[in-house]
Amino acid sequence: MKFSPLLQELIDSFKCLPGIGAKSAQRMAFHLLERNRRGGSKLAHALSTAMTDIGHCRDCRNFTEQELCEICQSPKRKLATSLCIVESPGDVIAIEQTGEFTGKYFVLMGHLSPIDGIGPEDLGLDRLAQQFASGQFTEVILATNPTVEGEATAHYIAEIAQEHEVSITRIAHGVPVGGELEYVDGNTLSHAFSGRKRYSL
Amino acid sequence: MKFSPLLQELIDSFKCLPGIGAKSAQRMAFHLLERNRRGGSKLAHALSTAMTDIGHCRDCRNFTEQELCEICQSPKRKLATSLCIVESPGDVIAIEQTGEFTGKYFVLMGHLSPIDGIGPEDLGLDRLAQQFASGQFTEVILATNPTVEGEATAHYIAEIAQEHEVSITRIAHGVPVGGELEYVDGNTLSHAFSGRKRYSL
Repeated sequence: MKFSPLLQELIDSFKCLPGIGAKSAQRMAFHLLERNRRGGSKLAHALSTAMTDIGHCRDCRNFTEQELCEICQSPKRKLATSLCIVESPGDVIAIEQTGEFTGKYFVLMGHLSPIDGIGPEDLGLDRLAQQFASGQFTEVILATNPTVEGEATAHYIAEIAQEHEVSITRIAHGVPVGGELEYVDGNTLSHAFSGRKRYSL
Repeated sequence: MKFSPLLQELIDSFKCLPGIGAKSAQRMAFHLLERNRRGGSKLAHALSTAMTDIGHCRDCRNFTEQELCEICQSPKRKLATSLCIVESPGDVIAIEQTGEFTGKYFVLMGHLSPIDGIGPEDLGLDRLAQQFASGQFTEVILATNPTVEGEATAHYIAEIAQEHEVSITRIAHGVPVGGELEYVDGNTLSHAFSGRKRYSL
């Protein structure tokens, strides 16, 4: 005994979402059918449009439905001399929200991971090398995640960048602002110590 | 700064799913765009078909894209004399998997909940009363959940059934098979005691 064919197909399809198993998929299907058919139809439409229309920005590889993303199109950033390298589109949003950075981005869409078969060509590093070669940038900021894979990716990119005349920097790692020393893990704390700076009064 | 319009719309649409907030919605959108566009398109298609085509079975109110669901159509069940009343389509599947019950079902699609504005008419209790009146059933099994709302709903339905000549039963509540007494909550344990049966050798 199974659900009706259409319902079973809907439940199975939900399982392609990350972190969604059989029970959650069933709950989602019931919820939409019982309480929010309009939301479900809206989601269906948004999904089908997004899957066919969203591509990658020619310059920075971020998701966009145009040839160039909003940031790469912006006249203010056209002549930017810093290039910030991040792993995912979410990182771009997070950095943009600080208002601290006004340069351009390069979105790797992942990190080097030989075990998953993700190599330099999957991260668009050939495209990145072209950007370095263009001579537009004087600084490359490595903002990959402070994980083993993120560090390895940063290192790999630094080696490529080294061949060009750019200054290579890595964002600082240490105790989060507002955090309590007691609850910070040892690895972060040793980073915070080795990265200490002269205190200016 | 936001994501591109189509991507933002997709993320917002994902939030209509139960238990999905801004971060999970973002993760789902990125996952599908980056790693599984085919799965995403399949989900879009399954969703849009399901939202328009799936309705309720005329007899038992379960989800189906036909007039009668598979169980109500089955010739073996046409003349069933027991009617099992459950809260959700998932309950039907769970009971069917035991192979213990060969009667018909009635799916309430929820429980009485005045606080959420869910009254007898939302659970199709008028349709249920017609089923009782038809005289087909000699036994009504109340299999709503053993929660406050489930018990109240069972009680309400028992009162309706009482007006017709049917025997009204409630599924047993007690210590789960394979469970350890030590870890069973007090409420269940007192149910298990008050519902004790003569031990047959």
